[in-house]
Parts: sequence; C-alpha cells; structure tokens
Amino acid sequence: MNSVSSPQLAPASSPSRISIALAERSYEILIGSGLLDSADAWRDLPRADCALIVSNVTVAPLYLARLQTALSQHYRRIEVLNLPDGEAYKDWTSLNLIIDALLSRGCDRKTVLFALGGGVIGDMTGFAAAVYMRGVPFVQVPTTLLAQVDSSVGGKTAINHPLGKNMVGAFYQPVRVIADLDTLDTLPARELSAGLAEIIKYGPIADAGFLGWIEQNLDALLARDKAALAHAVQRSCEIKALVVGQDEREQGLRAILNFGHTFGHAIEAGLGYGEWLHGEAVGCGMVMASDLSVRLGLMPAEFLTRMRRLIGRAGLPLLGPRLGVQRYLELMRVDKKAEGGEIRFVLIDALGHASMRAAPDALVAEVIAANCA
Amino acid sequence: MNSVSSPQLAPASSPSRISIALAERSYEILIGSGLLDSADAWRDLPRADCALIVSNVTVAPLYLARLQTALSQHYRRIEVLNLPDGEAYKDWTSLNLIIDALLSRGCDRKTVLFALGGGVIGDMTGFAAAVYMRGVPFVQVPTTLLAQVDSSVGGKTAINHPLGKNMVGAFYQPVRVIADLDTLDTLPARELSAGLAEIIKYGPIADAGFLGWIEQNLDALLARDKAALAHAVQRSCEIKALVVGQDEREQGLRAILNFGHTFGHAIEAGLGYGEWLHGEAVGCGMVMASDLSVRLGLMPAEFLTRMRRLIGRAGLPLLGPRLGVQRYLELMRVDKKAEGGEIRFVLIDALGHASMRAAPDALVAEVIAANCA
Repeated sequence: MNSVSSPQLAPASSPSRISIALAERSYEILIGSGLLDSADAWRDLPRADCALIVSNVTVAPLYLARLQTALSQHYRRIEVLNLPDGEAYKDWTSLNLIIDALLSRGCDRKTVLFALGGGVIGDMTGFAAAVYMRGVPFVQVPTTLLAQVDSSVGGKTAINHPLGKNMVGAFYQPVRVIADLDTLDTLPARELSAGLAEIIKYGPIADAGFLGWIEQNLDALLARDKAALAHAVQRSCEIKALVVGQDEREQGLRAILNFGHTFGHAIEAGLGYGEWLHGEAVGCGMVMASDLSVRLGLMPAEFLTRMRRLIGRAGLPLLGPRLGVQRYLELMRVDKKAEGGEIRFVLIDALGHASMRAAPDALVAEVIAANCA
Repeated sequence: MNSVSSPQLAPASSPSRISIALAERSYEILIGSGLLDSADAWRDLPRADCALIVSNVTVAPLYLARLQTALSQHYRRIEVLNLPDGEAYKDWTSLNLIIDALLSRGCDRKTVLFALGGGVIGDMTGFAAAVYMRGVPFVQVPTTLLAQVDSSVGGKTAINHPLGKNMVGAFYQPVRVIADLDTLDTLPARELSAGLAEIIKYGPIADAGFLGWIEQNLDALLARDKAALAHAVQRSCEIKALVVGQDEREQGLRAILNFGHTFGHAIEAGLGYGEWLHGEAVGCGMVMASDLSVRLGLMPAEFLTRMRRLIGRAGLPLLGPRLGVQRYLELMRVDKKAEGGEIRFVLIDALGHASMRAAPDALVAEVIAANCA
C-alpha cells in the first residue's frame, strides 16, 4: 500500500466521523470526548425491543450506568452481561455465556448487542452477534486505546483456541463504533502502552509522516493529552478504514495490518493468553518483524534502531520470552497467514509500505535468538 | 411468492445443474446418478494443500472411500473426521471436534471442507467452515433426500442449543453441492419419508402444479424410482434457488421455506433432539400450519384434508407429541421468526403462495389440541 498522505482533521473539540465504506455494510466511527453522554451518538441505531450490553467486571462499574442511560431512550428492555476480564476468557465458554444469556432472556433476532470494553469484549461480542440466530446487529463501544484504534474497527471478530489466537471467528461488521476518548482517563498505564503499539504500527506500514508525528508526540500521548489522543485515534482509524474498505475479508492488502502479529501471536499463545497484553506482544513482535525486514535487506539497520527506540519509549517490552526457537516456529506455523506449512510475515520494504513474504527458517531463528530475554 | 411455473427439466440420465445466483457467492448444484465416481463433478474446486472430509459413522462405511478416490486427484492431503450420527450431536461439542481436527492437523485457511452425509453433517460442517480462521471454502455432498432437497442448498448453517433449534449459526454458502441420487439407495425408509416432507413443502408455498405432481408420483418416490427422484430433487432445488437468490439472509421471502417449521422445531426441541427426525417434525408441523391457515380463513377446509392425506401417505406422523399447549407456545416463542415475544407462522393463503403472519394464542392452542396424539 502506498503512503496515505494529507490527513483531514476535525477540530478535537467536536467528534470526528470516519466512514468505513463497505456497500450495504458501511458504518461510521465516532471519535470524541463526552460521547457516552451525547444523545446524538446513539440516535438512529437499529430499532429493537431489546438491547444486550456485554461488558466485563472492570469496565462495567465505570461506564455501564451511563451507557444504560444513553440507551434507555431507544430500547424498552436493556439486558446486561458482565464477563470476567482478560484475554484468557476470550474462549468458547465466554461465547456460550453470551449465547445463553440471549436465549434465556428471550432476545429475538432484532436484538442489538453493545460491546462495552476493550478488544476482548469487542471480539467476543461481535462474534456472538455474527452467529446468534445467524446474525444480529451490534455496536462497538471501545473503552481501551487498543480497541479504539484497532480491534473495534474493521469487523474482525473471534475467540482464541488453545492451539492459536483468533482461530475461530467471522468477518462481521458493527453498525457503528462509538469511541469516547474520556474512557481513556481510567485506563491503566500498561494498557495505554499496549494501545500505543497498534498506533505505532500504522506508521511503518502505511504513513511515514504519521510515524514521525508519533515520535514527536509520544510524551503527550503518554500524558493522555486529549488533542494528541484524538489525532492518534483518528489517523489510525482513517488508515484502517482505507485498508479494510479495499479488502474486507483479508484476501491480500488487509494482512499488512498484522505487522508484528505473527511473532506477537506466538508470544501470546506460547505464554498462555493473558500473560502479556496483546499490544505488548505486538510491540515486541514489531521489533522482531523490523529486525527480519533488515536481515532480509529490505530496510536499512537504522529502521530497526528507530522502531526499537519508539517502542521502548512507549513502555512496551523489546525482548520476547524465551520459548525456544522451535516452539516459536511451531506456533507461527498455525498462524492464519501460513500456507502449506510456510510461515508468512508482514514485512516493511519502504517506510510507509508493507508486504507479505516468507523467510528462511534459519533467518527467522536468528531474529528470535537475538530478540528474546 | 407467486407460483413458479414451467420447470426446465434435464433428462434424468445426465446430471442437472442448477445455479444459485448470489453474485460472488454463486454456485452450482449438481444432481444425478453416479456423481461420486464422475471426474467431472469434482473438477475446478478451490485449490488447496489439504481437504477435510467430515462424515458420520453411518455414512462413512458406505461412501467415504469413493469420495476419497474422487478427491485424491486434487488434494495432496485428505483428512477425515467421522462424528456420531444424529441430530442430538448437532451441538457445540461436535463443532469443536471439527475445529480441533483442523487445527491439530495443521489445516491452513485454504483448506476445503467436504460435508459427506445428511443435514446434520452439512449444517455443522458448513458452520465450522464459516468460522474456522474466519471462513474456509466447503462443498456439500448430501447423502439423504432431506439434505439433497433442502438443507444442503442455500447456505444456512447452524448448531442447536438446548433452548432452541439452529440458534447459533451463519449464512455461509458452499462452493458447490454434489447430490448423487445413488446414495439414496441405502437410505432407511424412515429417512426417505423425512425427505419427502421437505419436498411436499415446496408445493403449497410455491408451486401448486408440483403439489399435484407429488400426489401423482408419491408411490414412485417411495419405491425410489430414479426418474421420479431426479425430478423431485431438481424441482425442489429450483424453487429453493429462486427463493434464496432473492433473499439470501432471510429478510423476508425466504422465511416461506420454513412452512411447518415453527411447530416442527417446537416438537424437536420439546422431545429432545433426535427423538423425531427433522423431516418428521416438519411433516407434522405442516399439518398444524395447514390447520391454522384454515382456521384463520385463509384456505378452505379441503386444503387441510389434502395435506393430511399426502403427508400420511408419505409415511410421516400426522399427530404431534403431547407436550402440552403451554410448552408448545413457550418453545415457539424462542423461534427465530418470533419478534418481541410474538410468534410468527408461515401460512398458506393460496395454493402455491405463503406469507408470514401472527395468530391469536387461543387459535394456535386449538390447533395444537386438535393435532396431538
């Protein structure tokens, strides 16, 4: 993909609207402060007798009441299901809890699901919406930086399997994404860093200028400056919208959004889901993928230095866990991008441009050995 | 839907091809004798390193070896998973067995799944294909009459939930349906009758002439006359293709294919899945839905008499189990067509024409009372 230039910014004070253009499945991402309490954000959603809010035990105490108030004008019955918090619970058991709640509470196939939480809640709620009665509408209400810039946008839904991350799921688009930047105020620092990993990702794969902007504004982002966050979330969503609009079902281009994810998924699965945050694994995975890009001669050594410095400044781990080279390779061979047992990596071949390539096992082994604690 | 006239028949000796027109998801249904051994039928399927055949312990001993031979020219690695036989196994556990097999055998996202069996195998394999790595291609190889005329065509995939039939699933189209009529030779008589229920269905909802043809040819169908079966399967698929082509995701018209199914699903769920065959429940459900159509004044009393006679001749039960009126109503309220707690029935309002309507509980109760053993 070529660099995506000239971002069109709305003033930080009014919510931005970004459209994901997918014909009859098109929808809008609203980004701004105060959206949970803004009547405008919740208008014109699909009508139904019943809404089900899926959240978790950490987020619900903070924001559930306000979401219930916002929805109370539109749905006669508002049901709630709070799941345990964490990637370890992104599994069949939790998915079943959502389905059981829908059926036992008599929710029909017009029911609208609302995912209030981070990527785990969004991915599972979206997948439940995709399969309940063969599909009901759902709305993403992301409350983590990672979910706001990445997982809530683009319609990838899934649960994990002990043998691999996101192995069971669906491409299923939400009817709206409502990203209230104020919810980032309560985000633990570790999760803020995890979100920054996915923001940083958009630079090398699609927008060299944005990479420079992040380097210049990282301190403001870490200090949760609202204007900086607004720009980072908006630009990330713009790039994602552009990519997803061209390749909804990951036939090609969309795979570039997985920069750092092949190594990252291996770290997550190898340690057991939930040990590292997804964004932490992606941060470290981007170091490894940058190293591989350099070792393959696609990028100069300075690129790796630059990525390492930025990822480290963001508070993300630079070294992966010592799982052993063979275990890394084994875990990466079940990655969804692998074909016929050949691992395929998203690599950077010019600043702002990525492509998918295979690499010799020996070289990959060198990268793993060089970047593990 | 208006009556669908002038069927275009191919000679029974050469396979018929019916197209399901769904833009980039279009595909062909092949119907004929000897297709399992015909090289033509298996050409030009998606290329992959690996194929997984999902079958069951009853069907595999009869046809698995021939399918393996047919596929051996196209796939380097052909994996097999045999599940237990029966509707009682159309659940999360079996779905997980398919996913586990795919992952543990290293099947990548180009893997093609083949569903060799009846409706249960087809529905589950299709759903597994829909969600494995967010979607892999699959081929339906239906070996029961019911699957050949109904469940293998149209892309409805699902598993059951203790609280309702087909409550978790996806609209996901196969890349081809290959219906070898010779596989009907080994079908138990009870399953032949179950398949006839879905064939009979197409008459009242869409084609009065076809209803007359079935009445005239029922003895030949029961005797498994190949020409009669070929016409019945083909005409059924033509009608289904026409309906699905207009309304893939059941926004409206497609619901008419569920004539008899609201009562039928209640019977299946109420007795426990597998007690009655799906087609048996639909047969009895059509009697109830015909009765309701008459009681609502939509059809003359003769219509009920005619349906009762035909369904009885086909070897299907005319009287439902005594679950109690309240239990029937409770089970029907979780039907996917229900909205805001109101049960909606597919009813006949002219021979060859159906529509979806609500009905007073008192009248539905009368129908249940009059049609239970």
